Amino acid sequence: MQKPTLISVDEAHAAVLGHARRMDSEEVDSARAQGRILAQTVHADRAHPPFDRVAMDGIALRVVDLATRRTFREQAFQPAGAAPLRLDGPGECIRVATGSILPEGADAVVQVELLRPDGSGSWTVLAETVREGANIHRLGGDLACGAVVADPGRGLDAAALGALATFGATAPRCARIPSVALVCTGDEIVPPDRIPSAWQIRASHPATLLAALHAAGFADVAVHLCSDAPGALEALLARLPPVDVLLCTGGVSVGERDRVPASLEDAGFRRVFHGVSMKPGKPLWFGIHDSGRSAFGLPGNPVSALVALVRFAIPHLRARLGDLRPDRFLRLPLENPPSEDSRTRFLAASLVDHPDGTRVRIVRGNGSGDLPGLLGAAGFVEIPPGPVSPVAAYRGWA
Amino acid sequence: MQKPTLISVDEAHAAVLGHARRMDSEEVDSARAQGRILAQTVHADRAHPPFDRVAMDGIALRVVDLATRRTFREQAFQPAGAAPLRLDGPGECIRVATGSILPEGADAVVQVELLRPDGSGSWTVLAETVREGANIHRLGGDLACGAVVADPGRGLDAAALGALATFGATAPRCARIPSVALVCTGDEIVPPDRIPSAWQIRASHPATLLAALHAAGFADVAVHLCSDAPGALEALLARLPPVDVLLCTGGVSVGERDRVPASLEDAGFRRVFHGVSMKPGKPLWFGIHDSGRSAFGLPGNPVSALVALVRFAIPHLRARLGDLRPDRFLRLPLENPPSEDSRTRFLAASLVDHPDGTRVRIVRGNGSGDLPGLLGAAGFVEIPPGPVSPVAAYRGWA
Repeated sequence: MQKPTLISVDEAHAAVLGHARRMDSEEVDSARAQGRILAQTVHADRAHPPFDRVAMDGIALRVVDLATRRTFREQAFQPAGAAPLRLDGPGECIRVATGSILPEGADAVVQVELLRPDGSGSWTVLAETVREGANIHRLGGDLACGAVVADPGRGLDAAALGALATFGATAPRCARIPSVALVCTGDEIVPPDRIPSAWQIRASHPATLLAALHAAGFADVAVHLCSDAPGALEALLARLPPVDVLLCTGGVSVGERDRVPASLEDAGFRRVFHGVSMKPGKPLWFGIHDSGRSAFGLPGNPVSALVALVRFAIPHLRARLGDLRPDRFLRLPLENPPSEDSRTRFLAASLVDHPDGTRVRIVRGNGSGDLPGLLGAAGFVEIPPGPVSPVAAYRGWA
Repeated sequence: MQKPTLISVDEAHAAVLGHARRMDSEEVDSARAQGRILAQTVHADRAHPPFDRVAMDGIALRVVDLATRRTFREQAFQPAGAAPLRLDGPGECIRVATGSILPEGADAVVQVELLRPDGSGSWTVLAETVREGANIHRLGGDLACGAVVADPGRGLDAAALGALATFGATAPRCARIPSVALVCTGDEIVPPDRIPSAWQIRASHPATLLAALHAAGFADVAVHLCSDAPGALEALLARLPPVDVLLCTGGVSVGERDRVPASLEDAGFRRVFHGVSMKPGKPLWFGIHDSGRSAFGLPGNPVSALVALVRFAIPHLRARLGDLRPDRFLRLPLENPPSEDSRTRFLAASLVDHPDGTRVRIVRGNGSGDLPGLLGAAGFVEIPPGPVSPVAAYRGWA
């Protein structure tokens, strides 16, 4: 039996990012763009704020007039959303609402809490000093017209989408989301809605891997089950419409019945690596096609497959989007550090609140690597080989 | 001007959770159930593993036979997914594949790495000792038939959906997702796809709040802009189809033109609180309707509105789902602790990787509370009043 040369987790990670062909882009309605990755630069089409904006309810006046008087007659009310009024002579003020444009001729706003109204439409200023520009958010104070609001690779979250709306970018160009197909091999698995024979199990990979893909923003996934019969995988691969990223599970070791690597190579994928020094997940295969399409051969054990997906396939997918942060993890103190080992380990773990800071707790199952053992966990911690550090990288799967 | 009585952030949080009427439930196709909250108990419909399962490629034999011989004739091959074969007399073995059912009469599996094949269909066992049960994952070793797989309130992530698939629960009952309407008041705002006048701004709240709601699993949100004209909000509220949770922005202070609280009360919502000792976000209003519907009056400033949404409205929505963890936060070391203050503060922040563990960095804008100042942040840290602790709770908005 041929032993593959194992590469390190870091080498494998660099390879899946390095071979991530960038997707093309498409315009996306901003109302449905949450989580998408920007593929253009967005510039401010106007300054922000776009006018001298009143930051408090109160009165607008001229500071110089305060040298000679404290009481001002209310000339008019300037609501938010209306064209600016003009302040008349000294002794006058204009009542203003938060968000309104500063009336012409005024240079400060005194907030209502520092005013005393009298009954005859005048206001007395109680503030000892009022400086020019008080409670005015100046034109362009946040951003100049033409400034960069967001760069390609930026994730469209609440902050970015709010800023894009502010500048009228309602159809930003975003990276097209890669199409994904998931092919699960194995004669022992039946679809979850069927009653298995006593010696069969229901397919759990599709549900598990789809959920993790969905949580990472990849919802366009076609699922296929494939038997172990000779030629079955080759026939399926020949028949499948091409997808940007092909994920196969099972049949990826070096045994005689492990047909996935050879089948993927027959289908035109060139092997980048086969075998990573990690547990679980060692027999991972990754290859690319001249067209830019990519393929992973994930282990057949469902927990191993999830580890490989979270650590390699999802970062690869995110790198294909041009995401500037394709790999998302937290580095947190380990509540129960494991003993030393010679290979990188991925252990199911959950986050635990603690007054000194969030910790990560390794959830020890019965070692079978089966899904029910993951129910108390929410992700994996990565423990590099050698002496165990008190902090570890944690990646959630949702 | 009437000053509202401010309650603490913790009191407000307890109130929004305490007044979260539970949603009814519906069956959901498990392929689209990622992120949903389970509303039923799921039991194992069979043991797991459902049979004595072979955990390694190798040969199955009887341990007692090893007392008299090391070489065994390969009687047959037992693939995964096939009915069990029966081991014949001593001196025989059955070659087995990972995932197959243990052949009848066998009580151990020797993995292929510890075997030497000879040319005539026999295998010599190189392992010094083989214990009974070796490389066999026993029937029911993970879970007994009938055991609880998942409880109501459990979030359906990769682990849960994989386990549900394993036990054939392909249409779990989940909490119905609350319908949400977002009503943004203000004469100064125009829809983002329109060219504003010099004294107007584009509405950014809808994009911001929708993105945060979407990221939290609430995608069914109707958006309405509403002018400040007297009666406009009342008319809109009267005309809107009822929703489970109504979110209004702006007009929630105690000024004469702040009509949101009175309008919501006119619409049948009973005030639970108005005003929270926090900045930003102080003028927050929350009320409930006898029907179980709830309403929030969020501040008009977009950053304040996002703080109030993330800290109160989203946990309320998640509590309505029955989520056992309605409020999600990390407690992390502060890279740049702020000075002391008498009110709870929410400061825009981002996560920073550090060899000693992930830290949170406060992102200081220009204090305007405007969205462009959030672009370098990904969430808020919460700084309680009084002496500043070196660690703080962080909530991401996506």
